[in-house]
Amino acid sequence: MEAALGIVAGILTMCGIVPQIVKAYKSKQVDDVSRGMLMIIMSGVGLWTVYGILKDDIPIIITNALAFLLNGYMLLLTYKLKK
Amino acid sequence: MEAALGIVAGILTMCGIVPQIVKAYKSKQVDDVSRGMLMIIMSGVGLWTVYGILKDDIPIIITNALAFLLNGYMLLLTYKLKK
Repeated sequence: MEAALGIVAGILTMCGIVPQIVKAYKSKQVDDVSRGMLMIIMSGVGLWTVYGILKDDIPIIITNALAFLLNGYMLLLTYKLKK
Repeated sequence: MEAALGIVAGILTMCGIVPQIVKAYKSKQVDDVSRGMLMIIMSGVGLWTVYGILKDDIPIIITNALAFLLNGYMLLLTYKLKK
């Protein structure tokens, strides 16, 4: 039961940034989105990825490495779309 | 080493939303911030909190319960400040 809960929780927290990416794509507006938020989350999930590697925990590595890439892409969008 | 890494990673991912809250407070602008993102992250960290309770893991409970409250507050701001 706990393992399933952890996987679902991991997928949700990993994908949390996706609606923000979709909204930025549709509206082309990113001025209100905080780059500081994206940078702190990237450093956090980056450390979680290292943590997963040290613990040899594949789910932690995968969910956090993908979260790193997704948040990194959103950070890129905040530069690309900024007026 | 790993425990310290996990605590720092947990604190970073927990506090990730804080710069977004500060930015919203200063600019009073939240139109570009995705509520979907906040709701998905809240459900994710909410499940992580339940996961921590089932595993009796205090750091997981504390970091994710606080992340739930912080993201919930930002969600509230998106309604309060929306033009």
